[in-house]
Formats: sequence, C-alpha cells, structure tokens
Amino acid sequence: MNTEITNIRIPEDESSIEIIDQTLLPGQLKYISLKTSEQCFEAIYSLRVRGAPAIGIFAAYAVWLLSKGYDGSSFESFFNAFSLDADYLRSSRPTAVNLAWALSRQEKTVLSCKDMSIPEIISALRTEADAIYNEDVAMCRSISEYGLSLLNEGDGVLTHCNAGPLATSRYGTALGPLFLAKEKGMEFRVYADETRPLLQGARITAFELMHAGIDVTLICDNMASAVMKQGKIQACFVGCDRIAANGDTANKIGTSGVAVLARHYGIPFYVLGPTSTIDMDCACGEEIEIEERPGDEISKMHYSKPLAPEGVKCYNPAFDVTDHELISGIVTEKGICYPPYSLSLKKLFE
Amino acid sequence: MNTEITNIRIPEDESSIEIIDQTLLPGQLKYISLKTSEQCFEAIYSLRVRGAPAIGIFAAYAVWLLSKGYDGSSFESFFNAFSLDADYLRSSRPTAVNLAWALSRQEKTVLSCKDMSIPEIISALRTEADAIYNEDVAMCRSISEYGLSLLNEGDGVLTHCNAGPLATSRYGTALGPLFLAKEKGMEFRVYADETRPLLQGARITAFELMHAGIDVTLICDNMASAVMKQGKIQACFVGCDRIAANGDTANKIGTSGVAVLARHYGIPFYVLGPTSTIDMDCACGEEIEIEERPGDEISKMHYSKPLAPEGVKCYNPAFDVTDHELISGIVTEKGICYPPYSLSLKKLFE
Repeated sequence: MNTEITNIRIPEDESSIEIIDQTLLPGQLKYISLKTSEQCFEAIYSLRVRGAPAIGIFAAYAVWLLSKGYDGSSFESFFNAFSLDADYLRSSRPTAVNLAWALSRQEKTVLSCKDMSIPEIISALRTEADAIYNEDVAMCRSISEYGLSLLNEGDGVLTHCNAGPLATSRYGTALGPLFLAKEKGMEFRVYADETRPLLQGARITAFELMHAGIDVTLICDNMASAVMKQGKIQACFVGCDRIAANGDTANKIGTSGVAVLARHYGIPFYVLGPTSTIDMDCACGEEIEIEERPGDEISKMHYSKPLAPEGVKCYNPAFDVTDHELISGIVTEKGICYPPYSLSLKKLFE
Repeated sequence: MNTEITNIRIPEDESSIEIIDQTLLPGQLKYISLKTSEQCFEAIYSLRVRGAPAIGIFAAYAVWLLSKGYDGSSFESFFNAFSLDADYLRSSRPTAVNLAWALSRQEKTVLSCKDMSIPEIISALRTEADAIYNEDVAMCRSISEYGLSLLNEGDGVLTHCNAGPLATSRYGTALGPLFLAKEKGMEFRVYADETRPLLQGARITAFELMHAGIDVTLICDNMASAVMKQGKIQACFVGCDRIAANGDTANKIGTSGVAVLARHYGIPFYVLGPTSTIDMDCACGEEIEIEERPGDEISKMHYSKPLAPEGVKCYNPAFDVTDHELISGIVTEKGICYPPYSLSLKKLFE
C-alpha cells in the first residue's frame, strides 16, 4: 500500500516547482515543471494542483521560487514585485481560504525580514514554505486520527470530491481517517461521488483509494440518495474550502446536497479540515464568495476516456424511488392527486 | 417554435419503424430504421428510444411490425411467436411499467381477435398501436394543462432527466406544462439537471427546451441544492416510470434526491405522468424492481463532445455552502467540534 504520492516537489537545482498534473489523472501520473507566475496561476486555476491545503502549500513555494527572479536592488522593489505576484496568485481561486492564508503568511515573512539581505529573505521564504508543508503533514495526521474515532468497523462512508493526499500533503483530510483505518486493518466500504463537472471523485478519490487497496465504489452524484436510502452509508466525510465562524462550510459544489440527504436519512455528516480553513472573520456562509467557472465544464467533457481508474467498482442503478411523503402532487391526465395518495390515486381508477 | 419532433414514425411501405436515435442527440437528429426483434430490443435497452410512454408506444408498434413475419398457418403458431417477441421486448427494461402495459394491451388485442384471420389480427395490432399513440397525445395534452395550473409567471422550475416530447408522443409529461406555458407567452426559467450517467437532461431536455425558445439553464445534478438555496427554484417537475399505490414513485436515478432537497428548501415537488404509470398492484416503492446498468456508463463517457446543445446556458458554481445545521461535526487537527459551532469553533482559537 502506498499513500505516499508526493504531489508537490522541488527539484535539486531549485529552479522550478514540480507538481503532479491532476487533470491527467487517472490516465497518467505525470509531473509538470512550473517556473513563471503565469504557469503557477494557470496550474491553480486549471486545477492541475487542487485541494485547499495543497494550493496553499503550492502558493507558498511559488512565491519563494518567483522571488528569486525579483529586482533585489532595494527592499521596496523586491516587496513590490512580491506583492504583485502574491495578488496575482491570490486571484486564481477566490473561495479557498488556504491560498490567501499561505500568501499572507509569506507576506508577513518578507515584512519581518525587512532588515535582512535579499538572499536571506528568499531563504526565509523557502523555510516558511517548508514549515507550511510540514505543519500540513502533522495536521493531516492529527485530523485523520480524530476522524478515525468516528468510523466503525464495517461502516459505509460516502465522500464527495477529493480531500485525500493529492489535495493536501499526506493522508488528506476527509480521506485521512480511511487511509489510517486501512493501515490498522479495519474493514469498511467507501462510496465516492464522481463529483461533476470535473470529476475529482472519479479521477482522484477513486484512484487514491484503489491505490491503497481500500474497497471503493464509484457512483454518480445523483446516486447518493439511493445508496443512503438503501442503508449502505453510516457516515459522510467531506473536506472543506472555508468554514465560517458559525460553522457554515464552503466545499465543492454538491456538498450541501449531500448534507441535506444525510440529514434526511439520519446519517451523520462530518466536515474534516485544518483550522486554517476556519475563517473567524467570516460570520456565516452568505459572506463566502463562490467561484463561478466556465459553463463549458458542464456542456463539454474535457477528459477523454477513461473517466475513472481502470477496473473501478461502480454502482449504477438507473432509477430510484421517491418516497410519497416527499411528493407535493402527482399530475395525471385525469387531474392532480394530493396526499394522502393511497386515497387520491385509488380515486383515479374509480 | 416547434415542439413537434416526431420520435417514432412508420414509413409509407410499413416495412420498418423509424425512430430518432436519441443517443446521438444533441449532435445529430437522425432517424434509424428498425426491422427485427433484436434491433427493437437493442433500441430500448440502449436508450435509442427512451422515456416510459415512448417505450410503450414503440413496443406496441414493434409487435405489430414483427407480427407481419410470423407463421400464420394457425392462431397458435402466430400467438406463440407473438408471445416470444413480447416477452423478449418486455425484458429489455424492467422498471418502466408502460412497456409491460403496452405489450399486455397488444396481447389482449391478439387474444380478442382469436377468431379472425391472421391479416385481420395484424391490422388490429396496428389499430391498437395507433390508439396507444393517440391516447398518449391526448394524455400529454391533458397532463400539460393540469401541470400548467401549478406554474406561475416568473417561476423557476427544476427538472430532472427528460420527460418531454421525445420521451412521449407530443408535449411530454414533466415538460408539457412548460411548452404550453411558452405557447401562452408566459415568462419563466427552467433549470435542467444534466442527469448522469447518460445525460438525458443535458442532451435531450436542454435540446427540446432550447428548440422551443424556452429559457433553460443546464446544471450538474449536484448543483440542484445550490440553485434551490439561492431561491431560483419555485417548483420541481419530474416524470415517472412507475407509481406505486401509495404514491412512491420510481423515476430516473437522482429524482429522490431532488425531492429530499425540495422538501428541505420548502419547494413543491410535482410528479407528472399518465395513469398508465400508476401500478395499483404495487403497494409501495420497495416492490419496484430497480434496473442496474453497466458500471462503465459511469466510468467511461459514451458521448463525445459536445454533451449539450451548442450555446446552451450553463450555471457552474465551483462550490456551495453547507448550512451549519446540517453538519454533525467538524473535525480539525485540534479535535472535533460539535454544535453549537459558534462556540465550539471559537474555542479552538482560545
């Protein structure tokens, strides 16, 4: 078992950042090399690197790398160039708090080194990026252990999108307890929402879990209701991009729907994420800016076949049954039936 | 405006059934010609013809067409051949009641003509198929008018899968009120779930509504919660494949999830369908057999680009916000927070 896929790495000559291009998964596990601010922006925007913690780590290394090319004739010129790049990278994705958080940490690093030489400032940026990375490894491990306390032998767990090692440093957040549980030899099943439009669940979560030998079944997002109703799910584990002070949580589109379904079916719904995701300056969900992305992510398919790892187990019911208690009216050619249906439907045939 | 796409037609020489191959939509509006029972089975199984009422109409014409090739030396040999084909076609999709219903009507037609000549029986099968078709047109019109009474000027309507003219004869069921409303000059907006895995919403509903000049926005299935929460939806209109005597309703996978969401957000959820869809012999939803289809409909994409009509309006939020009231726990590296979060999250930072 290998949960140790390193998604961000610095080559020995320190001239670039190398990342796994996550848009190529599961077909290809390929590193790409990034050197310019435009390449770094594009890598975040196009989800080549993704997952709130991973974006933060990546951005911290990115400003270190870019700072090596700045005009170092004065602190002001260096800091101006730094701020331009930081603002530019910050604008690549507005919802995840970790991106802004990591860049703001690096800004503080620069400002706290004001009286040092430029090479010393650059070195401090690297040290801080390493610290952000190492803190994330420790945080993920800790989250995974806490999360594991919520998992029972034999459970079915539903997860949405991807909050695994590729979205973080190691272990992941929402998926972390599952990797730990597997290491401890626990038996459990995972249902992974494919997570349209960009299919992070199908491409990445299914890939990571299969890679670790975990029993994972891929479903379309709209099948969550059916598997919950069938009693297959005992807990939902999801990650988060920003948590407001009242607990309202921004995460991949569709997460709120999973939560409503879980509530309806009486299943606990857990959000897993580092405290850096909690934004105490944000009172509630209405204050969170939601990124709107191009429509053709829906109307065109950007990934060629296969959409999921070869051999992934899928569950594909063509229909589901809607409980009569959830139906406001049944409209037939003979009129509209209202509850109680056992009477109103019968009446149609009298 | 043209809502008059004829999805099933008989050519003048009556040697085949022609259908629009709905798997080619929206890229291609192409009729294919079917002559054998295997071709007819495959057309239903592979969703070339789809939608519960349309499948019923198609099957009624199919057994008429096939009956012209049967051994007519005796009623018994004719009826045996008829029964074999009817059973075969009935097995192509188990959930939709209309398929079995139409075939059973045709079986009764044959049995009631026992004393007639074989050519007369064949002619009676054609007459009955025409009757099933014409009744469907009248039913859809009637359903559309009843449904229209549930729609208000300016409403946003969410629909799942496709229950439009291509799924029926004309107008459709769930979409029928929308076509009528458009004819009457009403203003309203439709949000169409794309409906994974086979994308009937993206490919067919969006196509039909755009074709009629109706304001339609395509969303991924997991975005329904977000648009409901934003107040964009005033009613949900869905079709149905089988309604049990207590009102439990089988329809395209994901429908039950839409209903749970609608209930949570206080939005009425209407099921629209002909009385032939109501199965009074079926007490409740647990008795409905749910078809399970191949997993690679999920793990591989069978339709090449585009997945939706050219120029379709899409709404593509990357995230949504889950209300804190729906979250059972927030797991951080510092421990698990439970409600009330305004206290437990704050405590993390003390």
